[in-house]
Amino acid sequence: MKIVRYKKDNKIKNGILKGEHIYNIQGDIFSEFSPAEKTDLLKDVELLAPINPPNIIAIGLNYRQHAVETGAEIPERPVIFLKATNSLTDPNSDIILPKIAADEVDFEAELAVIISKKAKNIETVEVDDYILGYSCANDVSARDCQIKIDKQWARGKSFDTFCPLGPWIETDLDPADLKIKSILNGEIMQQSRTSDMIFNVKQIVSYLSHNMTLLPGTVILTGTPEGVGFARKDPIFLKEGDQIVIEIEDIGSLENEVSKEKV
Amino acid sequence: MKIVRYKKDNKIKNGILKGEHIYNIQGDIFSEFSPAEKTDLLKDVELLAPINPPNIIAIGLNYRQHAVETGAEIPERPVIFLKATNSLTDPNSDIILPKIAADEVDFEAELAVIISKKAKNIETVEVDDYILGYSCANDVSARDCQIKIDKQWARGKSFDTFCPLGPWIETDLDPADLKIKSILNGEIMQQSRTSDMIFNVKQIVSYLSHNMTLLPGTVILTGTPEGVGFARKDPIFLKEGDQIVIEIEDIGSLENEVSKEKV
Repeated sequence: MKIVRYKKDNKIKNGILKGEHIYNIQGDIFSEFSPAEKTDLLKDVELLAPINPPNIIAIGLNYRQHAVETGAEIPERPVIFLKATNSLTDPNSDIILPKIAADEVDFEAELAVIISKKAKNIETVEVDDYILGYSCANDVSARDCQIKIDKQWARGKSFDTFCPLGPWIETDLDPADLKIKSILNGEIMQQSRTSDMIFNVKQIVSYLSHNMTLLPGTVILTGTPEGVGFARKDPIFLKEGDQIVIEIEDIGSLENEVSKEKV
Repeated sequence: MKIVRYKKDNKIKNGILKGEHIYNIQGDIFSEFSPAEKTDLLKDVELLAPINPPNIIAIGLNYRQHAVETGAEIPERPVIFLKATNSLTDPNSDIILPKIAADEVDFEAELAVIISKKAKNIETVEVDDYILGYSCANDVSARDCQIKIDKQWARGKSFDTFCPLGPWIETDLDPADLKIKSILNGEIMQQSRTSDMIFNVKQIVSYLSHNMTLLPGTVILTGTPEGVGFARKDPIFLKEGDQIVIEIEDIGSLENEVSKEKV
């Protein structure tokens, strides 16, 4: 099932997407809900990031080949960082290069996990009961802030629009071995499989739940594979007019264009 | 004016505290509101953290003498990190030592700023228009996670109950030169003045607003003075049964006890 959040006639709604039709959701996506008869057409609506999260938690250096390309050691436990919630952005809306840090903005294709109910101290075998579904995310990162200027990653990862999420939440999915790609202006930049993760989804969610309560709607970004812009021999950064697509097998494609901040 | 958030008869309300009386708020604390006639008595209610923030942003190493005690250089710009929102905790409720990291849990007295309306790219002279008020916070930190195990501070700062906030929001306050203290079991641990901040409140809020949109209700912790537990010659960490108080002049006292996680 594909859960969408969308805007039509200035109202924000949740729905279930089947083909070109969106069936409005009656009830709460975190508990009991059912699709109603009333439908909208996908072409008539503006898709939004499918959830409004209380926290965006991210895992660094979680693909073996990405750890290698950045020269980092393979971590012994998940590397946790946070993106501020103002960074959330919708499918098809612009990633904005911030005036204060416009020059080294990079892309990161990531599988996003969306938590369905309060999770605290859960074991890996229980994790599936706490996951609403999966989506595509772009963990956009201002590398100058993240690596050269600050030692903490929070600022470089939290600029407005630095967390595109979508296009929907796929609830029926085995995340263990999916193709994951980023495509910049039609050219493949990252291409890997989720099976290259050092810590898999069950391990990540269980570990996080031993460190904090995962609230319903929490978005967890599970790390990015090799091929990011800054780690290349000739670094590539996002620039005005670029189109960046994150594609994950059996979920879909998250597309965003890049523009400059207007000040 | 002191804005409180509280629970009575299982309902959560906002109010204005005058002496021992709480006047219920009619309207939205972020826009127009006025105190109604109906009142509760302070002694009959359970005070809650005065806001439910979309983000908790914190500034590291922002007091000169604290930077010195930790051996860090004086930062050239505010050091930004984030605490996950699950860390928020109420006045008089327990700080819980997490089972996974119970041994090096430290206290940090901090002046908290609460944002009243969306702030983006604002200058220091405009900052006062975007501040709802000030509160006391304790930036509780598991030093083993923060410093020895992880390089990113997010995990060690985001355990449940690691952000006590309160007891209320004081709206009429000049934050430039206030006494700030932490008191552990009756003994003063930290004692300084907000005038020792490297970046003052106006500089912090303006800087943050150039890096992200500050959403209404955002809580900003402005750093801690010298005297924290881990930087002492004989380190002091929180243990079961401790009482820790954060006291800021013209705001009030935030008290919490310490207990162990029950698993």
